[in-house]
Amino acid sequence: MRYAVLGTGIVGRTLTAKLASLGHEVVVGTRDPQATLARTEPDGMGNRPFAAWHADHNDVPLQTFAEAAAFGETVLNTTSGPRTLDALGAAGAANLAGKVVVDIANPLDFSQGMPPTLNPVNTDSLGEQVQRAFPDARVVKTLNTMNCSIMVNPASVPGEHNVFVSGEDAAAKEAVTKLLTSFGWPAGSVIDLGGIETARGAEMLLPIWLRLFGALGNTAFNFHIQGAHKSA
Amino acid sequence: MRYAVLGTGIVGRTLTAKLASLGHEVVVGTRDPQATLARTEPDGMGNRPFAAWHADHNDVPLQTFAEAAAFGETVLNTTSGPRTLDALGAAGAANLAGKVVVDIANPLDFSQGMPPTLNPVNTDSLGEQVQRAFPDARVVKTLNTMNCSIMVNPASVPGEHNVFVSGEDAAAKEAVTKLLTSFGWPAGSVIDLGGIETARGAEMLLPIWLRLFGALGNTAFNFHIQGAHKSA
Repeated sequence: MRYAVLGTGIVGRTLTAKLASLGHEVVVGTRDPQATLARTEPDGMGNRPFAAWHADHNDVPLQTFAEAAAFGETVLNTTSGPRTLDALGAAGAANLAGKVVVDIANPLDFSQGMPPTLNPVNTDSLGEQVQRAFPDARVVKTLNTMNCSIMVNPASVPGEHNVFVSGEDAAAKEAVTKLLTSFGWPAGSVIDLGGIETARGAEMLLPIWLRLFGALGNTAFNFHIQGAHKSA
Repeated sequence: MRYAVLGTGIVGRTLTAKLASLGHEVVVGTRDPQATLARTEPDGMGNRPFAAWHADHNDVPLQTFAEAAAFGETVLNTTSGPRTLDALGAAGAANLAGKVVVDIANPLDFSQGMPPTLNPVNTDSLGEQVQRAFPDARVVKTLNTMNCSIMVNPASVPGEHNVFVSGEDAAAKEAVTKLLTSFGWPAGSVIDLGGIETARGAEMLLPIWLRLFGALGNTAFNFHIQGAHKSA
């Protein structure tokens, strides 16, 4: 399968490396590939610049958002929440139409200090905004509720824990569930919350995630819905 | 210990019955005891009227918010979120001063349809509002993240799962943790998120709780933070 991973941060790199290791063809998308490769400073979380990572993964092309999205049969959005709609706009609606768009971003708003708040929140979500802005894309919100190392290595957290999917298109959610299974998620660990509106619930997990991070001092945890079973 | 349980809904009844069964003296507080007892209709969730419950628990006095709060050494707020500040105002700041006030309410806003949204949210929380409005109370947010039957019977959900505490007063959180332990919560299941500001995280679990309820069709689940451990 051909994948486009939009975004060059730690989430995008982690997912790109995993997809490539599974034998998929992956292209990373960014606004301006030359500018991305020219950066020499670590990012705000201390991750090394993209170029240093790319030197170790030079089989993965870095292209513009539009080129990457045109290439991918499935598109993963790992851009930062506040930039997501712009990035997908640059990718181009035509390059997203009919495709599964996996939205992994969180609409974190750092303008009010730390820990960040959410925007949108409560009566809307980034997942819904993406689906409204690109009605022909088959948007699935998932994986936004955990550290990226857990996304691609769920066994790194011992015991059962969950990943959520939200979206309007049942076949798209099924395809994403298969992708998650290939990452190591047991099929029973994937909880289908419902339509894309339920992305509000998944995104609003971030505030407690951030405070658990603060209280525990690490990110090696994930949400587990204990007792979850569908009523007959 | 003497407890005041403010609120006559299903959460208040469940906690009252548990506290009484543990041998505590409990008074239930309501705005107008005669009006509460005069109601003959089930509530919005189909629970029987308070008077019918009270007939089975007539050893528990029903008093005004102020009388109940004056009686209690510890005060549990189980009123509905939108009414909490009014109810605590009626209870009276002097009757709350110096006491542990356990805030179990969620600021659910049904004005925008179902599922409810939150108000306050994101940049504030009900727990913080309560602490600001009653600065001499020792507010601890807890238990708001699960169905009330699980609050007092955690073993009804098999396996490990968690209850969160948020508050400024370490001794108050310790007292609440002891209370939770007496309800059957293993001490290791209680996660201290930090100060009362972290009530935002706990309250913002409600949106996904509501959607899990919708997806699963039952409330017999609880949040479990898998892998949670404090970094050394």
